[in-house]
Amino acid sequence: MSFETKATIAASGGTILKLSHQSTTTGTPMNVNLYLPPAVATSSSSSKVPLLIYLSGLTCTPDNCTEKGFFQHAASKHNIALLWPDTSPRGLNLPGEKDSWDFGEAASFYVDATQEPFAKNYRMESYLTRELPDLVFSAYGDKIDASRVSITGHSMGGHGALTLYLKNPGAYKSVSAFAPIANPVNCPWGEKAFAGYLGAENKEEWKKHDATELVRGWDKKTPLNMLVDVGTGDNFYKQKQLLPENLEAAVKEAGLDGFTLRFQEGYDHSYFFMSSFSDEHVAHAAKFLKA
Amino acid sequence: MSFETKATIAASGGTILKLSHQSTTTGTPMNVNLYLPPAVATSSSSSKVPLLIYLSGLTCTPDNCTEKGFFQHAASKHNIALLWPDTSPRGLNLPGEKDSWDFGEAASFYVDATQEPFAKNYRMESYLTRELPDLVFSAYGDKIDASRVSITGHSMGGHGALTLYLKNPGAYKSVSAFAPIANPVNCPWGEKAFAGYLGAENKEEWKKHDATELVRGWDKKTPLNMLVDVGTGDNFYKQKQLLPENLEAAVKEAGLDGFTLRFQEGYDHSYFFMSSFSDEHVAHAAKFLKA
Repeated sequence: MSFETKATIAASGGTILKLSHQSTTTGTPMNVNLYLPPAVATSSSSSKVPLLIYLSGLTCTPDNCTEKGFFQHAASKHNIALLWPDTSPRGLNLPGEKDSWDFGEAASFYVDATQEPFAKNYRMESYLTRELPDLVFSAYGDKIDASRVSITGHSMGGHGALTLYLKNPGAYKSVSAFAPIANPVNCPWGEKAFAGYLGAENKEEWKKHDATELVRGWDKKTPLNMLVDVGTGDNFYKQKQLLPENLEAAVKEAGLDGFTLRFQEGYDHSYFFMSSFSDEHVAHAAKFLKA
Repeated sequence: MSFETKATIAASGGTILKLSHQSTTTGTPMNVNLYLPPAVATSSSSSKVPLLIYLSGLTCTPDNCTEKGFFQHAASKHNIALLWPDTSPRGLNLPGEKDSWDFGEAASFYVDATQEPFAKNYRMESYLTRELPDLVFSAYGDKIDASRVSITGHSMGGHGALTLYLKNPGAYKSVSAFAPIANPVNCPWGEKAFAGYLGAENKEEWKKHDATELVRGWDKKTPLNMLVDVGTGDNFYKQKQLLPENLEAAVKEAGLDGFTLRFQEGYDHSYFFMSSFSDEHVAHAAKFLKA
């Protein structure tokens, strides 16, 4: 299986590719956007660029952040490729899949579901850690360096970025997150999603997909290289859906280095928050991707 | 009449205000977005900041460019306020107003219509040059300097920016445009709009709203301070809706200084074009606004 290119768009000195492919993991067509920075956008260059993966939040497609997050501004400057995957399989029409905005379609929580009717298709963890990178490096291996990858994300995607990073030491050079769902086993969004995808009774399984739980198992000798931004005007933060303090406390309790949590005065949960700090999150990734 | 603030959003170190007001010029409620840069966003500062007005293209509301154009990135750096007006009155339900996407609602072409049923409400030229700036400087005169204003825009808004600039010498310090409809009397979009708003027979009147015609009357002693970008991958450019070469030829024929036309390789007509060059257009305005 390889990518079909649906659109090629000049942007910020490089090229945005809107790609589609038939996923063997989810059993559905999947859309994904890729930004090739100036160094590799137009010609075959002798040097490859690193990759930053951005995981989106609830309700989003790959297009939302591509259009509104403005990561390509700094990615162009640092010559880093960007990858915006989708938030779930689509078009399955499974029972219950579209009943609410925070569960099912566009709300996969980036786990491999074990519960019916989701177990066969909602396998976003496997998709994001195996099939999708394999495809990208197969199709663009002459331009993108498979050994230099970092990950970031927003809200549900911040949860995805943090957990995939913590579950796969060495796979990513760094991680960052905007307003992540940092302790999903203790918030309504996470409880609903994990009950539906992993089973209401399997709470030990839930912990394997929770950044605050996972960070306790991180190797003390390895710095976390982890940046988290949360807006103080974020209503979901106020409603205790995000719980970044719990992640911070777990990091401290575990005695880990390399964790930065910043509270950004007045910022909300919208893409204006990402576009305001995407320069800094790309720079954070660049520091470790160039190292 | 004063503004009602519908939303206050932290962005790029400053604040985006979503404003609404009842317009005496159009007889309708009008929405407009305002960006206050860091220097004046939160506190009363002793020094005021200049203002850059951005006029949007066909089909857009004030939100499109606010979300996707990323002008606030450079406006934050240069401490310039931004104003994103709407593209027409809305909600009138006039005959023919919603029959096509390139005429009527969201397609005012920024003229004062003389033809029925538009003459009473479609008075965007008066709205943009008189009522709206009066309101802004009345409400935010402690933060924004009424004597330092520049204007820019995209497509139909590029036409608006160029023509309002050329018709009002001294009102704006500089002008720039992305893919402007630069010679509307000679393209299908302009012919349709001017026939509908100004009358099919009144072709001399049309010329008073055409940048290529207007520039011939510009005072030779005053530099144009005019930057125009057009993407070579822009389908509307290829379809001869934009005709920037005609504007360039008229500038040369008139012997005017201070005009820059750039063709940007491969860029299309989308907001990715604006977000790729908004830093440079804000810098162009800043050069004259700070002078």
